Amino acid sequence: MLTLYYAPGTCALASHLALEYAGASYETVRLDFKQQQQRSPEYLRVNPKGRVPALATDRGVLTETPALLQYIAQSFPAAKLAPLDDVFALAKMNEFNSYMCSTVHINHAHKARGYRWVDAEDTASIEAMKKKVTQTMGESFAFIEEQLLQGPWVMGERFSTCDLYVYTIARWLEGDGVDVKRFPKVAALVARLDAAPQVKKVLAAQQA
Amino acid sequence: MLTLYYAPGTCALASHLALEYAGASYETVRLDFKQQQQRSPEYLRVNPKGRVPALATDRGVLTETPALLQYIAQSFPAAKLAPLDDVFALAKMNEFNSYMCSTVHINHAHKARGYRWVDAEDTASIEAMKKKVTQTMGESFAFIEEQLLQGPWVMGERFSTCDLYVYTIARWLEGDGVDVKRFPKVAALVARLDAAPQVKKVLAAQQA
Repeated sequence: MLTLYYAPGTCALASHLALEYAGASYETVRLDFKQQQQRSPEYLRVNPKGRVPALATDRGVLTETPALLQYIAQSFPAAKLAPLDDVFALAKMNEFNSYMCSTVHINHAHKARGYRWVDAEDTASIEAMKKKVTQTMGESFAFIEEQLLQGPWVMGERFSTCDLYVYTIARWLEGDGVDVKRFPKVAALVARLDAAPQVKKVLAAQQA
Repeated sequence: MLTLYYAPGTCALASHLALEYAGASYETVRLDFKQQQQRSPEYLRVNPKGRVPALATDRGVLTETPALLQYIAQSFPAAKLAPLDDVFALAKMNEFNSYMCSTVHINHAHKARGYRWVDAEDTASIEAMKKKVTQTMGESFAFIEEQLLQGPWVMGERFSTCDLYVYTIARWLEGDGVDVKRFPKVAALVARLDAAPQVKKVLAAQQA
């Protein structure tokens, strides 16, 4: 059995969607970030990083979205969520997912998590970080639109975990002050996934 | 033919070491960051991100260290740089490499690249970021020491790309004001790799 630990509005949505698209049998545990449940002793025993996502498997717990996405794709190969038979194409998938994780998500994190990188009481620096998020997220999505997203899906005709990840992070754009309509290919991908039954099911479950 | 674009002192060392350990036939191109060669029109045609590493292959260019490390391991399976036959273990490798990329390297980047996340003229905020790097890098390596590095290698008895990546970033600790001796397992891993002929060869080539 697989158990996904998540919180609504976080990057854990990408792994949740991957499990649904994979046709996996899985359970979910919702953490309430407002109550700081991710810092509870119980959860820190699951994931000492105190973050989501975490996926409990029969062999242990896995974290980090790019690792989870490939793990889910490899565990459920019939769902064809990754080009598993093509080493170069799989590397392109991981390149995209790594960029989402280490550049785009990090840009976004400077809005609400600036205390990670400066003294938590340095409100001026934390405000300065917040101010730049609209610019950095806009630049990242311009790069995605112009350089990375082949269309209609990230990897061209082939649907993959990249689409679930970029969809997840694109949902943050409005809150970050970026109009997704600036990026027609991204916006079309988001609209297609908004309409997909798997996505509707997962979002409804997260909001229930 | 594989061609690795790198600059000395950067995370590209991990991929360079992986190519060497893999027994790959490869060439290297050194970029001079002081001359901003990574921003030259020629290099931006190779890697529009303007960063290293980039690996040119017969099928196109790959970037992002975690993606490169698995690509090299899969392309040269006889070198056994990754647990390719074990989906869960491979996910653990990628989980570690993703943490190095999106948490540890990012912590370090706040020392010299703060302008990415605040206005480049906001020297007070940029200084505030620099000040916290000793703390965040120390915390990250404490987490690696206590939670992630099984010993003697990251994945226990099994050598993997994780070791090359943590070695690469551990080399930044002294400059970040962190004494690697606080972390005995990390320090022992670094000492073993310092003495390895593959590592000596790559470091000599990068410094030649």
